[in-house]
Amino acid sequence: MNTKLLLPLAAVATAALAPSMGFAQEASTAPAAETSYIFTTLLFLIGGFLVFWMAAGFAMLEAGLVRSKNVTMQLTKNIALFSIAAIMYWLVGFGIMYPGEWLIEGWLGPFFAVTSLEPMGIGAADATLDYASVGSDFFFQLMFCATTASIVSGTLAERMKLWPFLVFVVVLTGFIYPIEASWQWGGGWLSEAGFHDFAGSTLVHAAGGAAALAGAIILGPRIGKYKDGKVVPMPGSNLALATLGTFILWLGWFGFNGGSQLAMGTVGDVTDVSRIFANTNMAAAAGAVAALILTQILYGKVDLTMVLNGALAGLVSITAEPLAPSLFLSLIIGAIGGLIVVVTVPLLDKLKIDDVVGAIPVHFFAGIWGTLAVVLTGGYTGEATLVVQILGIVSIIAFVFVTSLIVWVILKAVMGLRVSAEAEVNGLDVSELGMEAYPDFTKG
Amino acid sequence: MNTKLLLPLAAVATAALAPSMGFAQEASTAPAAETSYIFTTLLFLIGGFLVFWMAAGFAMLEAGLVRSKNVTMQLTKNIALFSIAAIMYWLVGFGIMYPGEWLIEGWLGPFFAVTSLEPMGIGAADATLDYASVGSDFFFQLMFCATTASIVSGTLAERMKLWPFLVFVVVLTGFIYPIEASWQWGGGWLSEAGFHDFAGSTLVHAAGGAAALAGAIILGPRIGKYKDGKVVPMPGSNLALATLGTFILWLGWFGFNGGSQLAMGTVGDVTDVSRIFANTNMAAAAGAVAALILTQILYGKVDLTMVLNGALAGLVSITAEPLAPSLFLSLIIGAIGGLIVVVTVPLLDKLKIDDVVGAIPVHFFAGIWGTLAVVLTGGYTGEATLVVQILGIVSIIAFVFVTSLIVWVILKAVMGLRVSAEAEVNGLDVSELGMEAYPDFTKG
Amino acid sequence: MNTKLLLPLAAVATAALAPSMGFAQEASTAPAAETSYIFTTLLFLIGGFLVFWMAAGFAMLEAGLVRSKNVTMQLTKNIALFSIAAIMYWLVGFGIMYPGEWLIEGWLGPFFAVTSLEPMGIGAADATLDYASVGSDFFFQLMFCATTASIVSGTLAERMKLWPFLVFVVVLTGFIYPIEASWQWGGGWLSEAGFHDFAGSTLVHAAGGAAALAGAIILGPRIGKYKDGKVVPMPGSNLALATLGTFILWLGWFGFNGGSQLAMGTVGDVTDVSRIFANTNMAAAAGAVAALILTQILYGKVDLTMVLNGALAGLVSITAEPLAPSLFLSLIIGAIGGLIVVVTVPLLDKLKIDDVVGAIPVHFFAGIWGTLAVVLTGGYTGEATLVVQILGIVSIIAFVFVTSLIVWVILKAVMGLRVSAEAEVNGLDVSELGMEAYPDFTKG
Repeated sequence: MNTKLLLPLAAVATAALAPSMGFAQEASTAPAAETSYIFTTLLFLIGGFLVFWMAAGFAMLEAGLVRSKNVTMQLTKNIALFSIAAIMYWLVGFGIMYPGEWLIEGWLGPFFAVTSLEPMGIGAADATLDYASVGSDFFFQLMFCATTASIVSGTLAERMKLWPFLVFVVVLTGFIYPIEASWQWGGGWLSEAGFHDFAGSTLVHAAGGAAALAGAIILGPRIGKYKDGKVVPMPGSNLALATLGTFILWLGWFGFNGGSQLAMGTVGDVTDVSRIFANTNMAAAAGAVAALILTQILYGKVDLTMVLNGALAGLVSITAEPLAPSLFLSLIIGAIGGLIVVVTVPLLDKLKIDDVVGAIPVHFFAGIWGTLAVVLTGGYTGEATLVVQILGIVSIIAFVFVTSLIVWVILKAVMGLRVSAEAEVNGLDVSELGMEAYPDFTKG
Repeated sequence: MNTKLLLPLAAVATAALAPSMGFAQEASTAPAAETSYIFTTLLFLIGGFLVFWMAAGFAMLEAGLVRSKNVTMQLTKNIALFSIAAIMYWLVGFGIMYPGEWLIEGWLGPFFAVTSLEPMGIGAADATLDYASVGSDFFFQLMFCATTASIVSGTLAERMKLWPFLVFVVVLTGFIYPIEASWQWGGGWLSEAGFHDFAGSTLVHAAGGAAALAGAIILGPRIGKYKDGKVVPMPGSNLALATLGTFILWLGWFGFNGGSQLAMGTVGDVTDVSRIFANTNMAAAAGAVAALILTQILYGKVDLTMVLNGALAGLVSITAEPLAPSLFLSLIIGAIGGLIVVVTVPLLDKLKIDDVVGAIPVHFFAGIWGTLAVVLTGGYTGEATLVVQILGIVSIIAFVFVTSLIVWVILKAVMGLRVSAEAEVNGLDVSELGMEAYPDFTKG
Repeated sequence: MNTKLLLPLAAVATAALAPSMGFAQEASTAPAAETSYIFTTLLFLIGGFLVFWMAAGFAMLEAGLVRSKNVTMQLTKNIALFSIAAIMYWLVGFGIMYPGEWLIEGWLGPFFAVTSLEPMGIGAADATLDYASVGSDFFFQLMFCATTASIVSGTLAERMKLWPFLVFVVVLTGFIYPIEASWQWGGGWLSEAGFHDFAGSTLVHAAGGAAALAGAIILGPRIGKYKDGKVVPMPGSNLALATLGTFILWLGWFGFNGGSQLAMGTVGDVTDVSRIFANTNMAAAAGAVAALILTQILYGKVDLTMVLNGALAGLVSITAEPLAPSLFLSLIIGAIGGLIVVVTVPLLDKLKIDDVVGAIPVHFFAGIWGTLAVVLTGGYTGEATLVVQILGIVSIIAFVFVTSLIVWVILKAVMGLRVSAEAEVNGLDVSELGMEAYPDFTKG
């Protein structure tokens, strides 16, 4: 085929992203099971590498939003947390999240599942999912676990020691995330209750935000951030990197939301994946434009970091239900996400909760909003209710917040969380790592 | 399969990227319609996210080529223009570009199509394309619209206000681009006339360049750029970013050209997509090498920014017909694109047209060249003629240039286009946005 | 499908990444030949663009690890070497690597094959592979050739002239790499002998490392690097870029290893690709964590550049056999790769071999390790033996090292390899190219 003259004229007049298949009803030519298996596995692989790419996005976003004296530390935390997540999710997380048998039915899987201890591999039985490769599913799900940890590192930047942070990541990616995720995606009690969170506005983003919030409270703000009742700006060192990170995350989100369709082997499924791509893009764009306009109105000038976070908040907002909304509703949902960021960033400062990169507004507040917004459509099943959505949000946030708080408190007692005041002022790069990120550039 | 010993020996001797299918003639095993639907939809999704990624490429390229005092502004413009394009193309653009019924047959679609006003979504009829998902097509086409706007921002950098630029983007992405694109890809009069532009050397690149050119003329050069008959160099602040941006664009171009095959559901189509990938890569490489050699010869040393723009010009040049040429002809076409950049950059300076990033040489001049070069093969149909190619180029450029000029003039009268001289000298970041991109690095 | 409740409970208990197909034995529903052709071609295209992206990764990694005064040169070398590789591999390389008829059976293909001289393209016969498009295969294989050259540029940074380096790239990508690669992947004598190197731990990485090592020996260390028996640190100018480069390479490696399955048209093949993705990711993570822990133990603080190189060494290590190992064994293989980097970086310094970015530890030493590690599983065939693995490693390294050495010596005699001492001290950017990478930032 070789023309962009795509749309049969008749189709255009009613052109619509139908939520499910168009002509497939006739059914006789539906792809065979093995062809579907390949398509769905391919969706996991493409989705997985796109979500992997988000790890780079978080690293660039955070490296760009911290001051130059803390950039090496922020980069180190980001690559280390991803690597730890990859190992912990294999070692215990996957077995907890998708338990064959529950320790406590619907609430807690076995910490060490056969899956985990007897590593997947050669010589193993040829058991596999009947609709896609287990390996591709594992690869894809792992990336969501790592994303949850990525959210935490930004909030706590510029003052936290490396190793206690990494120990927290071990617990978060090996236990806290897999447990709460099992409640919904592992077929646990929330799933039974009818909670709806398509790709993880709450399960991933608000959860990561709750862990970050707990940490920020225990850790306290950076030295000099709040002085004489005023908020002292500490501008990020590299907005080009921060913008790059945002674009990377936006790109990766097509895999995050689109891959969460979990199937691409029928006309209906690939059509749904397409709707998700279009809606996800729209919500991001709307979040960015909302922040653009609102900062112009409120402050008389546009604030790029707000625009970036607005786009990300738009993405988080559409994540709980990227399939059911129309493009117009996706615009509304995303725009409200953008507005939430502009409003809640100063709110946190008022509470003296020092969130270096704005991760709590973007992932926690917009994540809650997105999960509530599912009721606007009822979700792809049409059955999501406000009560159950609130139940899910509260349960997950409470669980993650409380367990994280406990871990942070223990780590504070055992290892200490903060670097010394002198180290903080000098920057973590020199004092903790002995290595500057930009040795040729920085002023002093 | 598990060896890289790929080629049956017999095949090698005559190995060729046949323009169309090899063994498929037997036909009985051709993929069923639904399997083809999934493949083609997948092509749009992969192509679409690759072209999305080009938005990041433009942002990095331009942020790297402006001076550090204008980087925040350039980043803001880039993420804002993409977001606006995403909204405008949905709101009006798509309906204008693929009209079900024309307002003026072949020339102008209805500004507000049903498609646009009744947003795609749930509850809509299950109508869909019969060969791919409308959602994936919309997602893919949207990215081309956004690309057109990305071309403009670089040329006009370092002196233009934010909001008039964004208003221009609203008009360009909502109206100007969709109208001219409808002439060819919407089945309009140019398509009827036999114009050939596979993926948009003219429709996207020369069009974006024409809009930029009109803006540059109205806006005038940066203060101090042309002094006493001399061109004062104003070197870009971050060539690493500029190089990254070029690699991103190169990567995204595989989706830009490959996705424009608009079909992947047969052996012939996927073979064509493969040819396009190989040819696209060759043209980029040839453009880079041509600029490398030519700058060494002309100036006695290699100019990295010319090499980067040479690669991009190679890509633009092959875009009008990436399928029909042999690899050798792709090399020639791309290399001439690279030469055009080296020659036309100083030419613009002679005319005192100040194009900050070299977008006009890359997109406008190389775009024209690429569209003319279609006649070397006749295009994939073998029927492209010089007369019609010139007709298409002239029509589209004239339309975009004139309409853009009018919009620029109106915006100049109503809002003003330029920042004050003082703001320009101090840099747009501090004076317009109050936010430096690299607060820890810059000298003064 | 629309729930993340993926795993049938029964499957979980024995969940395993079966090395080959699960349910496919029944066979009657296996995808038809043309559908398989499309899937495999798509694997080459996706794998190819991911490996293309590695060129950007090398550029960013190296630009970040050199001092700011040499960044423009390093960027120029990287984009130029990729472009040259793209042309040379087409002109001669592909024909040498996959010869239809050998000049010397199993050892040397014809330098100018019909394939190369009669460029692929229109008018050619419709011959094509019977399982995938030749164009997609060419596109994919080309990227491996370019990768080999990318490895060399980093080691020799900060002191080598541009043009002799590029001439070396011409020889490496047109002749040296294709010849040695033909021994295995072109069906030559090593393949006959039973050597096993799935995606190129030796054929690409150790080979690139050997070429770099030869160059480093001839070129000598940077001025001031080894003084009074001490190693003077010359820290990289931009660790954010270096980290970005590492993430890019990690992403690209999914294509490098996954695409080397060379088939995706059956359930068994796509399941294998999935295993490869999961194993590749695990090895990278393990390499990073190993370097993280080891540098903390050895030096009392974490070294980010070691962590980055540790991840890359993990990737190189798993490349010779990413399919057969379990996830646990992948972890071990990758972790040992990471340890090798930490140990061999100082070793090279002891030998006064100045490898600016650590490419020899990462690609040469970890490449050898990975190729030896194949015997832990016997490879996917179960038949790899230590003797043959050593034979392959020694043969390829010896060939590449000796031929490279000869070329370097000739280039030294004819063109000179090093810039003048003054130029080196002032930085290659100003002295050789007259263009700074960061004109607004650098201190002096």
